Amino acid sequence: MSTAGKVIKCKAAVAWEPNKPLVIEEIEVDPPQPNEVRVKIVATGLCRTDLYYLYDTDNTKIFPMVLGHEGAGIVESVGPKVTEFQPGDKVIPLIISQCRECRFCKSPKTNQCENAWDIVPHNVEKAPVSKLNCKGKKLLQFMGISTFSEYSVINQNALAKIDPAAPLDKVCLLGCGVCTGFGAAVNDAKVEPGSTCAVFGLGAVGLAAIMGCKYAGAKRIIAVDVNANKFKKAEEFGATDCVNPKDHSKTISQVLLEMTNGGVDYSLECVGNVELMRHALESCLQGWGVSVIVGWTDKHDVSVRPAQLIAGRTWKGSVFGGFKGKDGVAEMVRAYLDHKVKIDEFITHNLPLDRINEAIELLQAGKSIRTVLSFTSQ
Amino acid sequence: MSTAGKVIKCKAAVAWEPNKPLVIEEIEVDPPQPNEVRVKIVATGLCRTDLYYLYDTDNTKIFPMVLGHEGAGIVESVGPKVTEFQPGDKVIPLIISQCRECRFCKSPKTNQCENAWDIVPHNVEKAPVSKLNCKGKKLLQFMGISTFSEYSVINQNALAKIDPAAPLDKVCLLGCGVCTGFGAAVNDAKVEPGSTCAVFGLGAVGLAAIMGCKYAGAKRIIAVDVNANKFKKAEEFGATDCVNPKDHSKTISQVLLEMTNGGVDYSLECVGNVELMRHALESCLQGWGVSVIVGWTDKHDVSVRPAQLIAGRTWKGSVFGGFKGKDGVAEMVRAYLDHKVKIDEFITHNLPLDRINEAIELLQAGKSIRTVLSFTSQ
Repeated sequence: MSTAGKVIKCKAAVAWEPNKPLVIEEIEVDPPQPNEVRVKIVATGLCRTDLYYLYDTDNTKIFPMVLGHEGAGIVESVGPKVTEFQPGDKVIPLIISQCRECRFCKSPKTNQCENAWDIVPHNVEKAPVSKLNCKGKKLLQFMGISTFSEYSVINQNALAKIDPAAPLDKVCLLGCGVCTGFGAAVNDAKVEPGSTCAVFGLGAVGLAAIMGCKYAGAKRIIAVDVNANKFKKAEEFGATDCVNPKDHSKTISQVLLEMTNGGVDYSLECVGNVELMRHALESCLQGWGVSVIVGWTDKHDVSVRPAQLIAGRTWKGSVFGGFKGKDGVAEMVRAYLDHKVKIDEFITHNLPLDRINEAIELLQAGKSIRTVLSFTSQ
Repeated sequence: MSTAGKVIKCKAAVAWEPNKPLVIEEIEVDPPQPNEVRVKIVATGLCRTDLYYLYDTDNTKIFPMVLGHEGAGIVESVGPKVTEFQPGDKVIPLIISQCRECRFCKSPKTNQCENAWDIVPHNVEKAPVSKLNCKGKKLLQFMGISTFSEYSVINQNALAKIDPAAPLDKVCLLGCGVCTGFGAAVNDAKVEPGSTCAVFGLGAVGLAAIMGCKYAGAKRIIAVDVNANKFKKAEEFGATDCVNPKDHSKTISQVLLEMTNGGVDYSLECVGNVELMRHALESCLQGWGVSVIVGWTDKHDVSVRPAQLIAGRTWKGSVFGGFKGKDGVAEMVRAYLDHKVKIDEFITHNLPLDRINEAIELLQAGKSIRTVLSFTSQ
């Protein structure tokens, strides 16, 4: 490849500071170093977590950065010590890497990777030196990935090789939202056939959770959202009941307890709101109800009466739907190609990267589920 | 039996009002009605939960009552429709009944009994009419049991028949504390061989949890208490390390995280303190740590940052150690007779019922693990 070993100049959407629109800039992308892969990003989704770090975090040390963590692309070049990938491979960058060597990767009990904490820092202050530069400044690579850039450099542990037949402008959604929701139901809640489930929040993650509940054989799937416009889509994905908390004077947990003879078997919070997390737990059946926190927030405590847990409920959380990064994404791509899981139905809008701020507005207004941004200039 | 069908006059320790010593009174015990069994209580432990309802509950509608829920006795007579028991059977009253017919009893996922909610009300305001009377007043039967009485009348669903070889002044502790702690480790946390555990609180329940961790094959068992006098006993039960939070300037969770390369696999809170419940969760390893709330309180919320759960920790509670009432108690009695579990080592004091207020003082002062009260006048 003519670009291998050289700095690549390309377009990226840069977040210079919090609470401001992204700016399309020409940036420089360094060649990959040992264990790194340079990827030409072909398409990327926009996820609510991107907006959380743009608008809601108190940590200003992450700016300037390039957001985006739900992308798919093609390997442009590889650095030394990279044996798993070669130019031309179709890949999906991972928010949960998989080194296959640490105690977490070797255990079936978690999808987390202990080595990932260095290369994909959730604590962004500890981020390694970025491979992305603009106007003489280093840009932080969000989650080690930065898919809002035409090219990105990614550690080989944080990259999944996928089936060459996969359409990148669809399977990019497996980089976060679809795997996160689907897996939370299937892998973390471990929804059982014939069970009753409640899903709080009907964005892409919530819809994917509904899809997961249905895939796992749930008999009844109750979709909860304050935006009734989302109910039709929820039913398409498998919801059997839709409840708008605004239609009731009782709390949503009380409503669900009454609808279900004492509570649901499984509840999934897919918003990232601590009050809703509490309601989701309290909506579960005493004895064996399991509530999984899927939505992300970390600004406030989540609280509950101890008796809610002592009475036999289980509270847990989910990261990337419990999927081991490389294995899970490759498996979900095959499931999509085999028509076992939906992806196209999540995509409500397609836009070029240049119009990313429109995509942000659509998501904030609840008018889109997923906008897929494509890099048309390439 | 000469007493069958008649009211029995006997001694009981009556709690006339909150925050006052118990009073030994002569009470009248009604004959058993359909599905009920009258039991001559031979011995009973004193559990911290008795003290919670005497001193810490805000609910004054439970008085007057007869406390006690950790007893063992002999069937005196049975009411109509009772087929499982006959006079002379050795029995242990259950805080978790087992009707064998409800959706909970039929499920392997919980030890709770849906029918129990009527006959053994945790909501004491909904208590059925008591069979115990004193000075013209009905006495509430605490947890449907009231073992601080020489005789009690108990629903047949809330009674376990045990091996006739069992010494009642020992196995009475299986009615609550020993099963609660042991089972929380074995059945609820599901401690695995080779794992690392932390047990918070070294009363009878905590010591039983340590015994459970060891029984399940834990490699390292860290005992935590602010009373260093309890460490020797903890080591006898299997603790490999003892930590006194008072010896450290860091929080106890921070201390444990550092001792264990990132956290324990399992933690068990055996006190009933919401701050300690939080520390117990935060002491667990990211990825797969499981924290079980065993101690009872319900006056305050328990709180945690959502990220603690999202990072892969699981929070759950335990009632009666996850043991199905009848099956579990009978099984634990056999395990004791086969020398697979300890009971004698929990008993630090033996006193007659008349001296129950001394037993209360010993427990409050942290000077006893368990006092077994016996009904010597019979």
